[in-house]
Amino acid sequence: MEILDVEKLTDQKWLNLFAATYRHHGKNGRWVYASRKQATQPHQGTADAVVIVPILKVPPEEPRLVILREFRVPVASYLYGFPAGLLEGGESIEEAVSRELLEETGLEVTAYKTISPPLFSSAGLTDESVVVVFVDARPVPGAKPKLDSSEEIEVVLLTWKQVDELCRCKELFDSRAWMGLYLYAQLGRLE
Amino acid sequence: MEILDVEKLTDQKWLNLFAATYRHHGKNGRWVYASRKQATQPHQGTADAVVIVPILKVPPEEPRLVILREFRVPVASYLYGFPAGLLEGGESIEEAVSRELLEETGLEVTAYKTISPPLFSSAGLTDESVVVVFVDARPVPGAKPKLDSSEEIEVVLLTWKQVDELCRCKELFDSRAWMGLYLYAQLGRLE
Repeated sequence: MEILDVEKLTDQKWLNLFAATYRHHGKNGRWVYASRKQATQPHQGTADAVVIVPILKVPPEEPRLVILREFRVPVASYLYGFPAGLLEGGESIEEAVSRELLEETGLEVTAYKTISPPLFSSAGLTDESVVVVFVDARPVPGAKPKLDSSEEIEVVLLTWKQVDELCRCKELFDSRAWMGLYLYAQLGRLE
Repeated sequence: MEILDVEKLTDQKWLNLFAATYRHHGKNGRWVYASRKQATQPHQGTADAVVIVPILKVPPEEPRLVILREFRVPVASYLYGFPAGLLEGGESIEEAVSRELLEETGLEVTAYKTISPPLFSSAGLTDESVVVVFVDARPVPGAKPKLDSSEEIEVVLLTWKQVDELCRCKELFDSRAWMGLYLYAQLGRLE
């Protein structure tokens, strides 16, 4: 399969539609997708955003998974998702993780445990990609979440038992968040 | 936070941009997102698509995770993703899973193990939601994948050791696929 041409269909600030013309088995097709990019460059191996899976460790307390309950405008509802945010110009993955985690939760990273490759959110619909970063975290004395005016966020701390219960619930979730809850539920521990 | 109005910005067949006007702390804001819906109805508790996490069990062979390597037009590249597809009118989750798994891999479901609630692919960018379904599967004698003209797919079967290796690779992945690989890598077995 081969991409012949990409046309930008809209002129919005944060998100646009693009139409790709592709050739496959001698026939041309058209595929419309959404992108945060302003031009039609191909994937550069970098991610648009970080998604953080933080485990709060304050011994001797039991470890807790940190998740947000957040109003999301496209869904017009509250849903559970991990702390996340767009990479700002020139930031490393670790810098974006530290900044977003502190801003959204008041926590700081004590260990970067796993950093995924760039993962595509839904590759039939968008070229958006995120890096999922598993970290241990601790509170920063005196730090309070510093939210954008467009954010309405509650920080939720979950013991392993609460993780196991939440992922069986008929709540609304971000897909990465539910997969993370399910991972720890299956694993039988937060680590 | 409250949604005051939603405007459809484009008129494409499969995917459109919408602009929501929201009110938060006494101020109005505007949020542009992508949707597969044609109208501006709110989330109905149903999903747009299924994502299938199949484990092939043909005793006495060791179980294998089934994953696809697939060209995705928005990314202009091949990436690893689980079998997946849009729900067709009136289908149940189980019907969509059976149909998509057979079409894309030639396998049939022998057990539905876990069915997630609707999960949002990237709730800042789109209202698209998927249900992730963990199944056991077996080959259907004589069945071959039946692909759409827009699909270019290779079916890949992975032992646990290969799952563990693949999720450490700098390959391109769908986010649900990498989270699934990482789940089984951490778990230490395919089950």
